[in-house]
Amino acid sequence: MHGILVLRILGALLLCLAGTLTTTLPIALWHRDGTWPSLLLSLTVTAGVGALLLRRRRPKQELSVREGFAVVTFGWLAFALFGALPFWLHGAIPSYLDAVFETMSGFTTTGASILTNIEALPKSLLFWRAMTHWLGGMGIIVLSLAILPMLGVGGMQLFKAEVPGPTADRLKPRIQDTAKLLWGVYVLLTAVETGLLMLCGMSFFDAICHAFATLATGGFSTRNASVAAYDSAWIDGIITLFMFLAGINFTLHYLALRGRRLSSFWRNEEFRAYLGIAAVATALIMALNHGTIYTSLWQNLRYSAFQAVSIMTTTGFATADYEKWPVLAQYILVSLMFVGGCAGSTGGGIKVARILLLAKHAIVQLFRLIHPRAVRLVKLGSQPVSDEVMQSILGFFALFIATFVIGSMLLAAVGMDLDSAGAAVIACLGNIGPGLGSVGPMDNYAQVPALGKGVLIVCMLMGRLELFTVLVLIFPSFWRK
Amino acid sequence: MHGILVLRILGALLLCLAGTLTTTLPIALWHRDGTWPSLLLSLTVTAGVGALLLRRRRPKQELSVREGFAVVTFGWLAFALFGALPFWLHGAIPSYLDAVFETMSGFTTTGASILTNIEALPKSLLFWRAMTHWLGGMGIIVLSLAILPMLGVGGMQLFKAEVPGPTADRLKPRIQDTAKLLWGVYVLLTAVETGLLMLCGMSFFDAICHAFATLATGGFSTRNASVAAYDSAWIDGIITLFMFLAGINFTLHYLALRGRRLSSFWRNEEFRAYLGIAAVATALIMALNHGTIYTSLWQNLRYSAFQAVSIMTTTGFATADYEKWPVLAQYILVSLMFVGGCAGSTGGGIKVARILLLAKHAIVQLFRLIHPRAVRLVKLGSQPVSDEVMQSILGFFALFIATFVIGSMLLAAVGMDLDSAGAAVIACLGNIGPGLGSVGPMDNYAQVPALGKGVLIVCMLMGRLELFTVLVLIFPSFWRK
Repeated sequence: MHGILVLRILGALLLCLAGTLTTTLPIALWHRDGTWPSLLLSLTVTAGVGALLLRRRRPKQELSVREGFAVVTFGWLAFALFGALPFWLHGAIPSYLDAVFETMSGFTTTGASILTNIEALPKSLLFWRAMTHWLGGMGIIVLSLAILPMLGVGGMQLFKAEVPGPTADRLKPRIQDTAKLLWGVYVLLTAVETGLLMLCGMSFFDAICHAFATLATGGFSTRNASVAAYDSAWIDGIITLFMFLAGINFTLHYLALRGRRLSSFWRNEEFRAYLGIAAVATALIMALNHGTIYTSLWQNLRYSAFQAVSIMTTTGFATADYEKWPVLAQYILVSLMFVGGCAGSTGGGIKVARILLLAKHAIVQLFRLIHPRAVRLVKLGSQPVSDEVMQSILGFFALFIATFVIGSMLLAAVGMDLDSAGAAVIACLGNIGPGLGSVGPMDNYAQVPALGKGVLIVCMLMGRLELFTVLVLIFPSFWRK
Repeated sequence: MHGILVLRILGALLLCLAGTLTTTLPIALWHRDGTWPSLLLSLTVTAGVGALLLRRRRPKQELSVREGFAVVTFGWLAFALFGALPFWLHGAIPSYLDAVFETMSGFTTTGASILTNIEALPKSLLFWRAMTHWLGGMGIIVLSLAILPMLGVGGMQLFKAEVPGPTADRLKPRIQDTAKLLWGVYVLLTAVETGLLMLCGMSFFDAICHAFATLATGGFSTRNASVAAYDSAWIDGIITLFMFLAGINFTLHYLALRGRRLSSFWRNEEFRAYLGIAAVATALIMALNHGTIYTSLWQNLRYSAFQAVSIMTTTGFATADYEKWPVLAQYILVSLMFVGGCAGSTGGGIKVARILLLAKHAIVQLFRLIHPRAVRLVKLGSQPVSDEVMQSILGFFALFIATFVIGSMLLAAVGMDLDSAGAAVIACLGNIGPGLGSVGPMDNYAQVPALGKGVLIVCMLMGRLELFTVLVLIFPSFWRK
């Protein structure tokens, strides 16, 4: 580990953060919400620390894989620690731990909130809260499609096989170029959603905040009742559509936009599975809710699809209290929490590609038992998946389950009930937001004990960074020079 | 598939079953419990069907792998279907579905019961109920240590690597010889436990029934209050010890008995992990129960160790209502349900060896990320584990989780609550017996809807036969000539 190299990059990242924080100042001044002193102070502190870190002389070494991991993990952590300052210094969130929870939830696009009255927040802070989602989503896109494959992190090599034409070929090979192209798509989709939401009667402020939270699959709303507050079928429909789009691999959006054809989507096997799971889950939930919870088919579709897509894409917006739905419908939602979005999207969870490969692998294993001499490979699209990738998925799966079990045990240890503990951990580890029980869609994380909030902060970070990125730090050999 | 070959073997197995059923007749006559007509009828039907199947001419083909799978799966099913006759014909269990549930629970050494008043059962039927456990345990030992490795079923090839000196070398290679040696150990341990329980004041009948249920890690008691009915620290201690022994690979018992040394155990890595998990779980549960549930250290050890070992070995005897324990203690017990006993024991669950290898695999995957050029293999004991075995474990893990999710969804669909549905499925799939909620240690499965009982019967069978054995039947190509 070359610590100085890492610190210099963290310094640069903090300067970027300070730069984005300036966008809140005009809002603070326009709405005269009295937040400008705390915003200015946060900005100064962040920029100051950033500049201090950058002042150190640049060492001659190049960035190696190990420094890459350190930059990603500590970068996200630094964003949460410094991004929390505006909430804390203003006093809107009096506890620094709570402020870090809220900001980590933002930057990891989780959407779990400790706020009991969101609407009481000054406009500039509400905007900053939505902004953390959007920045986090940007970070995830470049992380999952450009940085992690370079670091060799599990499952992400998939893209080489799956996306028609390897990432490195079609999308320009260098991180910066890849980032620019995909961010272009991201900005475009955000702009289109903002426009559509305004057409449905949302104010510009609400529209852009919700677009930020949608495209990042975050889930922070500006309203206490989440999207339900608008009570508009059009708004529900638009947000359902854009949540679904945000859960798709952004490379596919880019390819579709460039080629002006939709066939790029359909040719992608992960997308087909993603669409299939979302459709089947929605249909099942509708069948269960039919006649009991919703009497009209239209209403049933509106609410069931919204909740299913919101949970599966790990957004976490709510328009209905799904804890009042039949037990099986809740069970389906919990299962969707584990699945998550497509790899290369802003969605969290285990990811559709991994689930798909696990299922195919299991079937091949069964098939081999009765046809020992037959050769049958696991494929994604038309490409066979290497043993290396399967091994990496096995590792990921084991770590995901282990983290889930240990995390929920720790929450149970600080006094949460069995259901809520499990649901809170999967909601944070999968970067979803709302869970069940005491952290259900109509509740929040305010009452979780401090230690539990700490555990959940770590879960959000681990889930967002594909576990491996954070867990490599536990090896003593990681830290050696 | 050569159906006639399979049917002939099933016929032979039914004749064996009829043979073991005769042991209940002397008990029925001695206690004059009025069951002899129904026992005789069951015996006749079973033997008759068996003889009919055997009458068909023996085909020239040898038994292949596919017929092997069919024999194992349908053999277990046939045992449950015909073994249920005594309960049903006598009327002690009026519903045939319930009788099959109880018998499948017996032969799969699960121990889940639909009986609300066990003590009302005639003695001969109580004996038969315990006997199903013991026969099931015998079946499992020979299945897991002799038949499944021949069929190439996942994870079981482990023994070749792990047990000092491959199974095929040290233990005589042929199924019959292996079976005889290991059954000798099984019978010996059963006899010793029966003797010890009688020394503590149990009647011979109760002692042998409990020894049957212990060595098979089954869990059917002859008393409504399970082992708690005896309220004896000595009995609790002896049963704890023998449950622990039953959860160990029986090859190790054989090697230890033959060499008259205990070092065989310690040299086995799976055993060390098994002991470690049981010890840590007991210590944690004791720490949680300390001062609140139990005030004396001795009492705390007695009840905490009993419950932990009972759940981990998937026996399912109860001496305390663990649903009244702190949430974290319950969570630890639920986690132990997934772990289960050692491979090659009568215990169920995922098995310690698989969990151990998954954990090691995950660590190696992490290590490789930061040391890409370092070679580090997953080992069990001193032997590296082949990629093939790891792939098979990945397949097993994926199928286990999938079965668990689909099973609990089906139970939720027939109206069980979320906790009970999940706990019932893992309790049956892991062959444990009692779960949580409405199927907790002080409850039973009587109130589960009929469809749910059907699902759980399939779960017990799948869990007991290592999933693969049952699931290969879904391939159409399995059935082709």
